[in-house]
Formats: sequence, structure tokens, C-alpha cells
Amino acid sequence: MEVLAALNLGDIAQVFSKMGMFPVFDVAYYIVSILYLKYEPGSVEVSRRSPVASWLCAMLYCFGSYILADILLGSSPIDYFQHNSHILLASAVWYLVFYCPLNLFYKCVAFLPVKLVLVALKEVVRTRKIAAGVHHAHHAYHHGLFIMVIVGYVKGSGVALISNFEQLLRGVWRPDTNEILNMSFPTKASLYGAILFTLQESHWLPVAKSTLILIFTLFMATSKVVMTARHSHGSPFALIESWVCHLLFGSPLGGSEEDHHHAPAAAPSSPLKTKEELSEGARKRKAKKAE
Amino acid sequence: MEVLAALNLGDIAQVFSKMGMFPVFDVAYYIVSILYLKYEPGSVEVSRRSPVASWLCAMLYCFGSYILADILLGSSPIDYFQHNSHILLASAVWYLVFYCPLNLFYKCVAFLPVKLVLVALKEVVRTRKIAAGVHHAHHAYHHGLFIMVIVGYVKGSGVALISNFEQLLRGVWRPDTNEILNMSFPTKASLYGAILFTLQESHWLPVAKSTLILIFTLFMATSKVVMTARHSHGSPFALIESWVCHLLFGSPLGGSEEDHHHAPAAAPSSPLKTKEELSEGARKRKAKKAE
Amino acid sequence: MEVLAALNLGDIAQVFSKMGMFPVFDVAYYIVSILYLKYEPGSVEVSRRSPVASWLCAMLYCFGSYILADILLGSSPIDYFQHNSHILLASAVWYLVFYCPLNLFYKCVAFLPVKLVLVALKEVVRTRKIAAGVHHAHHAYHHGLFIMVIVGYVKGSGVALISNFEQLLRGVWRPDTNEILNMSFPTKASLYGAILFTLQESHWLPVAKSTLILIFTLFMATSKVVMTARHSHGSPFALIESWVCHLLFGSPLGGSEEDHHHAPAAAPSSPLKTKEELSEGARKRKAKKAE
Repeated sequence: MEVLAALNLGDIAQVFSKMGMFPVFDVAYYIVSILYLKYEPGSVEVSRRSPVASWLCAMLYCFGSYILADILLGSSPIDYFQHNSHILLASAVWYLVFYCPLNLFYKCVAFLPVKLVLVALKEVVRTRKIAAGVHHAHHAYHHGLFIMVIVGYVKGSGVALISNFEQLLRGVWRPDTNEILNMSFPTKASLYGAILFTLQESHWLPVAKSTLILIFTLFMATSKVVMTARHSHGSPFALIESWVCHLLFGSPLGGSEEDHHHAPAAAPSSPLKTKEELSEGARKRKAKKAE
Repeated sequence: MEVLAALNLGDIAQVFSKMGMFPVFDVAYYIVSILYLKYEPGSVEVSRRSPVASWLCAMLYCFGSYILADILLGSSPIDYFQHNSHILLASAVWYLVFYCPLNLFYKCVAFLPVKLVLVALKEVVRTRKIAAGVHHAHHAYHHGLFIMVIVGYVKGSGVALISNFEQLLRGVWRPDTNEILNMSFPTKASLYGAILFTLQESHWLPVAKSTLILIFTLFMATSKVVMTARHSHGSPFALIESWVCHLLFGSPLGGSEEDHHHAPAAAPSSPLKTKEELSEGARKRKAKKAE
Repeated sequence: MEVLAALNLGDIAQVFSKMGMFPVFDVAYYIVSILYLKYEPGSVEVSRRSPVASWLCAMLYCFGSYILADILLGSSPIDYFQHNSHILLASAVWYLVFYCPLNLFYKCVAFLPVKLVLVALKEVVRTRKIAAGVHHAHHAYHHGLFIMVIVGYVKGSGVALISNFEQLLRGVWRPDTNEILNMSFPTKASLYGAILFTLQESHWLPVAKSTLILIFTLFMATSKVVMTARHSHGSPFALIESWVCHLLFGSPLGGSEEDHHHAPAAAPSSPLKTKEELSEGARKRKAKKAE
């Protein structure tokens, strides 16, 4: 603790929270997002048959959070597309991931050590987006606590929340599950993050925003890097959630995640896993087979 | 008539149309709406597995009309969520209906005499919403008759019009029917009400708005109370509609409702009933079994 | 070329690009659009069972491009519905096409020589819409090249881009295909047209806008008239596209269209053809049978 104080945590947080995201962090965000798109079963085939559909999906993966937040705040959903350089960069990443000769680019960025760095960088962008979303909503609705949480949430979760419709664009339809019914770790963390940043923005959480950004970024980056390295999808929140849900909502103990694997009553909706539930290994094998 | 004149109908209508809806009428609206959500098959299970999805559905049931009208008029869809007290109230009702110990709250409000009062109060709110929707649209588009009707219509019908997507949130997908294809009584009445209020707003119907509100409220409340008490879903418009549709659109006589029960041609789309077509008794039994 | 010069091409283009579309061209647009709606399997039955759903679909067919462009630019989706005369005209066409005694109106406008004229007039409107869409987007986002292309594209393609949801309104759900995955000729041409008009608007294409409108209109009208007359759905772009896609995206040679008919890998998604892929003859037969 004294070491931290000597390092002057506040100053580090300040510098960190002012750091520009473009282009390094944004590129990492685009690469990891489009990598996840390529892991989706059938996406490689779509990229061959209909490049326009594949490009649209890639844009949804990269900019879904902006699109959703703009819709929720009543702006133009394609407002972010005025930033030509960002779109061109994301399009270049999309092209390299899907069409690079010998699949070289994909092999490089999917190489675990490289990927772990990229995943960490992506979480930096995610935290910033949540904070920016809450701030933006606060600007539009000064006392709209619910609006702040919702906008921060969609800024953090992005395309996951509309994955049903993103899949529909690729000709896939899985109505029996969605990201709200079976929340993955990033979506849950975005929700909790949005609540924290909303409390901070409305002065109920006595902490500087830059400090909160630093702490939340560290938590998210660590969690995601560990989970990616271990091909795991267990959530660090599982135990607390399981107890809170049991007390408040009468959910059976053992957590909602475990529950719907064991309980036969919920069986009809479990065979189709959500995007993030599929083990990364399985997805990579699928993606490789599809090449 | 002389009695009505002696009572000074105009004054009563004036007072009635100025009466505040918050919180008594609004709470009744929330209770009845979330009661209908609980009647939906599978909704109790969703409330155990994913409280967030259940809460979102409840918000759609309570505020779907505002969300839809805001979308249609180009505002932020979550604009209404700035009213924290309304959201908190609706959330409290949602919590009590779904998670109250011993299911006490649900048993109280689903008790027929209580429910009839609540249903009547809900119709008061519905009529107000239609009138407000038409007025709002008139403000934005002075000569937009179609826009007034459409906005009034969605303000009256609310979540029913997007029930396909509300169900999707709970993992249910029934593409072969929707509220436009098989309109229930409240949806039809909202359409006719929106047309009446539009005619009034554009001075083609020579009647005071407060009087129209009073009369339409009485009609809606009476109809819904009688229908709820008798577990009936026949529409008072059936006879006139059947003749008008026969003359204008060549629909077979007997009404579209009866028709698609008897005609084998329409059979593929009839097994799945719309929300409001299911008898209330059946829904209650299902809801109780799900407990 | 000398003849063209003598005719003073620039002046003709100027006059042509200033020509009013209402009501002659617009009526042709409405007639052809609603004709295509009537060709859709099941649409006649829907028009009998639920005139409201049928009318809504007709409005989507006629004004889908305005609705989509308004959504994308953050305006009210029903903004265009303030033009009462256009809505009434389209509604009259809808009524005549679906409910005219003895099906007289339908027989007249579906008579090939009449239809060819109407199809040509429709393409005049389509080109104007693309140009207007690009111009409108340019006005809102001066450097938003992507936004201009997207808005011009949706203005040209209209309801085709949301055909999944238009079908859902009629109780039909075909998730395994959509207009982006399997683009029809008008959709593709709209995309290329939107790119051309965007290049013109941002002064990268050294040609007057009126000239571009004239040339693109002539190309579209000729192509569609020839295709309608020959009941063909081959695209004039097929050869170039096939080579470009092969070089850029590694698509197998032979074109994406042919490919997904021959390749067994794509078979699961091919049985359900897109709207425009069904031969017109087959659609007419279906429409007649449904009478």
C-alpha cells in the first residue's frame, strides 16, 4: 500500500484515463472482435459467399456498442460511421482476418501469447466505453440513473446484446437463447461496471473517475486474460451471484449457470450455447476446419 | 338525458380529464400488465433463471407504449426511463408479483373482485395514453393524420404490438402469428380510439376532448371488466367488423375471428393463440402450475 | 456521339433531373411495388384475414426506403407519413390491386406491355431516391462517405433489406436467407449506384449529377425491362463480380449466384429462394391460384 502511495496512484490513474485509444488499443479491439466473429460457425463460408454480409457483421462486432448506444439515445445509429479512419481500419482488419493469403494474419493474432496481449488491450477499450457511455447519458439525462446504467451497459456489451440479429444477418436463427437470458462474463461485468460508473457519476461512490477506470480496467484485463489462457468460462462473480439470486429471487442455489446444466426442466434451452459459452478450443477447431 | 344535463356532464368530463394518473392509476396499470406477463407460459421460469430478462420484459409490459411512441417520433426509446419514480414503482410491482413470499401479492391482485377494479383503472390509463399520443403527434406534425392515428394506436396497444420480440427476450419464438394479424380486443379498440381522437384533434369530430375521453374510458372499462369477469374474448365490434370487412375487403362473413377457427385453410396459423386469446382460466392454471 | 452532342445531352439531363415525380412516376412505383407484394405467397390470404396487416405491408413496400433512411439518419421512421396525399394514393393502389372487383385492376397492370412501362417508370424513381439519399446524407455528414453510401443504398433497395421483418408481419419467417446474403439485381445495382453518387457528391467522379442520374436511370430501366420481359434474374454484373470476388475474397469462380446452386456445401440455405429469385411466372401462378 505504501508502495502504491509512493507511486502516486492518483497521478497514474489520471495519466491512464487521458491516454488516447486510437489507433493501438482500437486496433486490438477490432482484431479480437473480428477473431470472435471468425470463430462463429459458418462465418467463414459467409465471407466467401457474401462479402457484404460478412463486412456488415464485422462492423457490428466492432461498432455494435456505438450503434446500440446511439439508438438508445435517439441519435443516428450510423453516426459513428462518419469516422472514416476507424471504419477503414476495422475494414482492413476484417480483410486481413478473413482473406489474408495462407491465413497468415489469423494465425499470428490467434497465437496465444499475442492474443492474450490483444485481449488485455480490448478490455482497456471496453472500460473506457462504459465510462464514456455513462458520462454521455448523464449529459443528456442528469437524473436518469436507469438510463445511465442502460447506456453504459450496452456500450460495454456491444454486439452480444443483439447477437440474435447479427446471426440472422448470416442466416442463423437461434431464438431459444440470447445474451440477456444467459449472460456471459463480459456482459455481466459490463452491467456491474455500468452500475459502478453510474454511482460514481452521481456522486454516490466517493472515488475519482480516473481511479475507478484504472481499477476496473485492471480487474477486467486480468479476468479475461486468465480466462482466455485457461479456456475457461466460469465467472468470478458466480458464488456471490448464486447467493444473492437465491436470497432475492428464489433461484435454486448453485448459480444460474450451473443450474441450467443440471436441471432437466431447463434442458430444452440449453443445447444451444451462447457465443461466449463455447470453449475457445472448440471454436478454433471449427474455424480451422472451415478454412 | 336530463339527469346527465343536471349533473353537468361537461364539468364532470373536465374534472375527470384533468385527474392525475400517478400513482394510483399507474400502479393499477403496472399490476395488471405484469399479471399478464406472469400468465405467459414460461415467464415464471425465466424470472428464476434470469431476473434481468424478467425485469426487462416487465418494463416492456409497463412502458412498451412509451418506448414504441418515442421510436416512432424519433426520440430516445428509453426517454421515459428518466422518470425514476415510475421505474422504481413498476420494478417494485414486478418484484412483488414474481417473488413475494408465499405468492401472497399475486394471490391478492389476481382475486377476481380486486382484479376487476384494477382492470377498470388500467383502461382509464389506456384512454389517456391514446389521447396524449394523438396530441403529441399533432404537436409534431400538424397535418399528419396518419401519424396521429399510428402514434395513438401504439400508445394504446403497447407491448402487444411487439409481442414477438418481447417473447424472443424470454427465449420464445412464434413467427406464425402476431398482434397485427390477429388483433385482440384492446388492440382493435386502441385503433378505433386513435382514429376517434385524431378526428377530434383535427376538428372533424365536433365534441370536446374531455367528453370523448370520458365516454371512451367508460366504454373501455365496461367492456374489459365484463370480458374479464366472463373470461370471454369476443369483441363487441365483431358483428359490425364482419359486415364492413365483407363489403370492403371481401372477407368471408362470420368475422375474421370465427373464420380462422373454422376454416381449414387458415389452420396452420391458428394453433398458436395470441396472448389475449388464451382464456384467463387456462393462463392462471398454467401460472399456478409453474410456481 | 455527335448526335448526342447535337441533342445537347447536358440540357436534356438537366430537364430530366428536375422533372417532378408526383404523381405519375410515384403511382407507377406504388403499382409495381404492391404487385410484387401480391406475388408473395400467402399475401392474398393475409389481405382477406387482416386488412390492417396487408395495408402495413403495402406501406412498407411503397415507403420502406424512406422509413429505413429516416431510421439511419436518426429521424422519425414515420416522418414520410405526413405526406397524406402520397399515403392516400398508395392506399388506393393497394385497395385496387387487392380488392378490385373481378381482379380487374390487377389484370390490367400485370399485363406485360403495361407492366414493362410501369417497371421502367419505377426505376426512374429508384435512381432519384438513391441520388436524394446520398445528397441528404452528405448534408448531414459532410465527410461521411460510408454514411452516404449506406443511406443511398437503403433508399434504392427499400423493403428488400428488411424483407425478413416484412414477412414476419404476414406470419412468414425464413431466417436462413436475406437480401444481404443473396442480393438480387436491384439491390446490387442500388449499392453500386450509391457508390457512384457518393463519389460524384464528394467530387471524385468528374461528372455532373444530372448526367449521372440520366445515365444510371437509362441503365436501370433498360436492365429491369429486359429482365422482366425475359422473366430472367441473371445480373449484368455477374461476370465482373465473379472475377473481382475471386481475386479479392477467394470466392470460387462461377459467381456467388451460380455457386450456391451447384455447391452442396451451401445447399441447406438454398431451398428457400429470395423474393426476387422466384421466377415471375411461378409467382403469378401462385398469386392467381390464391385468388
